[in-house]
Amino acid sequence: MAPIANPRVVFIERLTSGLPVAGKHFVLDTSRTIDIENVPLNGGYLTKTLVLSPEPAMRERMRDPSVPSYTTTYTLGASIVAFAVVVVVRSEKESIKVGEYMYGQTPWEGYTVQPYTEVVPDPKGTYPLSKYTNIMGTPGLTAFVGMEGIIEGKEGETLFVSSGASGVGSLVIQLAKMNGLRVIASAGSDAKVEYMRSLGVEVPFNYNKESYESVLSKHGPIHAFWDNVGAEALDAALDASVAHGRFAICGTVATDNVQFEERYRLKNAFQIMKKRITIRGFIVPDLIPQFGGRFFQEVPALVAQGKLQSEETIIGEKWEDVPEAIIEMMSSGHGHAGKPVIVVAQQ
Amino acid sequence: MAPIANPRVVFIERLTSGLPVAGKHFVLDTSRTIDIENVPLNGGYLTKTLVLSPEPAMRERMRDPSVPSYTTTYTLGASIVAFAVVVVVRSEKESIKVGEYMYGQTPWEGYTVQPYTEVVPDPKGTYPLSKYTNIMGTPGLTAFVGMEGIIEGKEGETLFVSSGASGVGSLVIQLAKMNGLRVIASAGSDAKVEYMRSLGVEVPFNYNKESYESVLSKHGPIHAFWDNVGAEALDAALDASVAHGRFAICGTVATDNVQFEERYRLKNAFQIMKKRITIRGFIVPDLIPQFGGRFFQEVPALVAQGKLQSEETIIGEKWEDVPEAIIEMMSSGHGHAGKPVIVVAQQ
Repeated sequence: MAPIANPRVVFIERLTSGLPVAGKHFVLDTSRTIDIENVPLNGGYLTKTLVLSPEPAMRERMRDPSVPSYTTTYTLGASIVAFAVVVVVRSEKESIKVGEYMYGQTPWEGYTVQPYTEVVPDPKGTYPLSKYTNIMGTPGLTAFVGMEGIIEGKEGETLFVSSGASGVGSLVIQLAKMNGLRVIASAGSDAKVEYMRSLGVEVPFNYNKESYESVLSKHGPIHAFWDNVGAEALDAALDASVAHGRFAICGTVATDNVQFEERYRLKNAFQIMKKRITIRGFIVPDLIPQFGGRFFQEVPALVAQGKLQSEETIIGEKWEDVPEAIIEMMSSGHGHAGKPVIVVAQQ
Repeated sequence: MAPIANPRVVFIERLTSGLPVAGKHFVLDTSRTIDIENVPLNGGYLTKTLVLSPEPAMRERMRDPSVPSYTTTYTLGASIVAFAVVVVVRSEKESIKVGEYMYGQTPWEGYTVQPYTEVVPDPKGTYPLSKYTNIMGTPGLTAFVGMEGIIEGKEGETLFVSSGASGVGSLVIQLAKMNGLRVIASAGSDAKVEYMRSLGVEVPFNYNKESYESVLSKHGPIHAFWDNVGAEALDAALDASVAHGRFAICGTVATDNVQFEERYRLKNAFQIMKKRITIRGFIVPDLIPQFGGRFFQEVPALVAQGKLQSEETIIGEKWEDVPEAIIEMMSSGHGHAGKPVIVVAQQ
């Protein structure tokens, strides 16, 4: 077989503020080819990329390496590395079999000589592959470890979830409902409000129509807060918290795309003291040592029993769609309920 | 003996914002008398008030009961109840002996039929009585339990302490130095800077001369933050924190006296997520169950050995001084290093 095209998404300029721009910060490079039958594996294995999972952490990896954050940075001129589901097409490694699916951090390119990927999902393919980018992957793990390690919700308590229709948010809601919590949740469109209602949220609302402050003052107080957005949502939650409220800070999408000087500034920080609130910013690796094992024991079974569900929305179907799809995912208030994915190949 | 004057400080109007005003929010009532030999004790005991300890929590107790906070509220028309050292002058209670000193919450009046007070300090009077309002009392307990329960400093780490010349702040600094931490600390006058330097602080500074932001960006990063003030100090600390920084929020004096709409607003809250910071607001009772016992075992011994010291400043010496002294204590940036006390009687 002759060499075939091996498209890849290349990082070419660092992001200083605002949204990245396709063609400026990253580009699709279609110039490369690969001979999948003969490319040397050097004891490794070759994977084909199937489903890409654009996630907010990719924004952090585009920054200048001198700015501290929770991730390493991308290398200029190299392929973007991020989450994806891949399938093994050749292998020289005894433990890795052709036809196995994998999920983890991998270069975003058509074919890759691995190993880069880290997590092996259900090899039988019980679920659509896109599930492994959501409830069975990092968003599910994020929701599970954060709920266990920070929120620790008790039956009858009220939890507020910002960005409740997102991949992580929708799973947080379901875990909260399984534990008997009352849930208030926000999102940016009426369709997302209906989706959150279908998950059992008692007070779903559209923050473009009702302010965080007015909804929480009416339907609070809250015992816990899962924050994916920051800014007005965090400020209103500080005001609406009971004494000893627990806040898990998982994302800051409300300010990520805003120039620093124009960002919303918090007026209720004094409530941290007055209400003796505990606030913890976290990413998944912080809590995996304590709670990661239970995720893999419990969540796949709950999915199999239909007790946990997830929505994945295909926002791209070919490599040419990828640059724009990344930006769409990063835009606060994008229109998709659930986890956005890009299906670049069917198998 | 004929009845004698029994002055008291009475709460007469709730505080809505800003500083309370002597004569408006509380007054000295000199109209009452007490017959200390014949007043009925009903099985209790009579105490004489010696040293009053004005503390920031008194401001919270002046608020309207509908505003949630960490304390109960004062009763209009009743004596202020707050910390003081008292001495027992009569007793019908077997366990309470005449001549014993006590420290705890008590009505601020010349003589009181108790029991109100809670903690019995060293009955031999090894130390000046004012010590029991500071290192041997609530400020010492606050510093100890917060350092053990939230800061958990390790040798070689850098701790930033705001209001480092205050009662609590100066004890936090000494506990940090005992554990081998490097300390950055702020206060509002050059005299306080020198006091902090004498406690071993490596980077003491006057926030009226150098901004929190400039000092922390130059001498940071910080691993932990003990906050007594909030506002600019908290904002700068968020920016200067390492990943996984620990913040103990103990006070908000920078905003307490400022109208809500005019308060400083936080610009760096997004760093809670980016740096995965844990922030905990607390008051002493939150941590007493875990760490209070060790305070009473360890701190008196450290004081006796001269390893922990405290400064107390007498800001009033008669009942007539009390209303103004309360306000002075509450003013951010008052001139006194250490703990302000009012000595209303010598024994």
